[in-house]
Amino acid sequence: MSGDRTLHHFPLDPASRQVRLALGEKRLPFVDVQVRYWERPEAFTDLNPSGVTPVLVEPDEAGPLILCETRAILDHLEEAHPEPALLGREAAERAEARRLIQWFDRKFEFEASGYILHEKMEKRLLRMGAPDMANLRQGREGLKAHLNYIEALLAAREWLAGRRLSLADFAAAAHLSVIDYLGDVPWAEFPGAKTWYMKLKSRPCFRPLLADRWPGLAPAPHYDDLDF
Amino acid sequence: MSGDRTLHHFPLDPASRQVRLALGEKRLPFVDVQVRYWERPEAFTDLNPSGVTPVLVEPDEAGPLILCETRAILDHLEEAHPEPALLGREAAERAEARRLIQWFDRKFEFEASGYILHEKMEKRLLRMGAPDMANLRQGREGLKAHLNYIEALLAAREWLAGRRLSLADFAAAAHLSVIDYLGDVPWAEFPGAKTWYMKLKSRPCFRPLLADRWPGLAPAPHYDDLDF
Repeated sequence: MSGDRTLHHFPLDPASRQVRLALGEKRLPFVDVQVRYWERPEAFTDLNPSGVTPVLVEPDEAGPLILCETRAILDHLEEAHPEPALLGREAAERAEARRLIQWFDRKFEFEASGYILHEKMEKRLLRMGAPDMANLRQGREGLKAHLNYIEALLAAREWLAGRRLSLADFAAAAHLSVIDYLGDVPWAEFPGAKTWYMKLKSRPCFRPLLADRWPGLAPAPHYDDLDF
Repeated sequence: MSGDRTLHHFPLDPASRQVRLALGEKRLPFVDVQVRYWERPEAFTDLNPSGVTPVLVEPDEAGPLILCETRAILDHLEEAHPEPALLGREAAERAEARRLIQWFDRKFEFEASGYILHEKMEKRLLRMGAPDMANLRQGREGLKAHLNYIEALLAAREWLAGRRLSLADFAAAAHLSVIDYLGDVPWAEFPGAKTWYMKLKSRPCFRPLLADRWPGLAPAPHYDDLDF
């Protein structure tokens, strides 16, 4: 199996999901290895000393190429498999997609998903007890502010970074999709964001994410419904 | 002045410093606009809605190109001004540089510099009172763990990502240099890291950083000393 592209990931990790969406959109097949990152398995920390998912191992003539962390993986995929382009072709398009990727990976995580995923998912995985309701409320407030920002962007654009689907859409959708699995996205209040998410959800690259189930963490009933 | 490249930045911000080092190394001149980001000046949030420094405005035939956030700026500089290359030429080199950039921008900030900069710098800028000693101790412990990691990398390599100077060195040095301004890097215990930092400090691109002074925040006495 040393000749197969292999993704080491956790199904409900937004960073891993961005890579799965990009691999799917580029129609690059891969072998799927699920990592219980919170147990810090040695086979995985040998690959990535930070212990963070995802890691992509790409077969290469000179030996396997080990790509650790989303940034390294997604940038490599754009360079090695440029079609379809997921960062835009012009400098301004690329700048806007990259600005938004950092927006979702830092600001959204800091103000919204960090709270919600810690309280509703990580505490369950790590058996850390009941969610802290004040934290959860803070995350939900942050989420609404970000959904408003997404609506504002989409009022003038078809996709988040402009005319074309990009890694910015995958970043935002990957983060939102885990919150949606947990049933915490108030879609009814944000029709523009909902329409955009529905378009993404219908793409073939999204299908594997909708099939994800994790023992002890049941998804919201509408999670895999394309017409939610 | 609309034809000049302009960097909006805060001198003691590690993200801004990465961009200043890259611009210096590539010998790209720029006009310098200092931003008191914590006051959220409207002229700046109009440029970058996240309110985060740095922002680079590049003159372009089609109108100015506004690049927000380190990732968008540094990736654009590699694409638009590829020489000298700061990400390596081969896929494995680039993957390693990008892995380490994410390491310093996330893990190092989360475990070390976030604590130290918040307690010793931001609280001063925002008049938030005295540093919390427990937080500061946690940051200093984290810093030692990361200096050990830097020593381990440098035991087998000339630069952090391999044989060539890269953005990984600039990321690490930018973060460390602000902690060093505050006098909190225990260089004497980490001779390998110290030699590496001395080499970086002697480069022309580093000079503007060593000249930085912020009112009310005096640098450590050795801060601008090349032989510290």
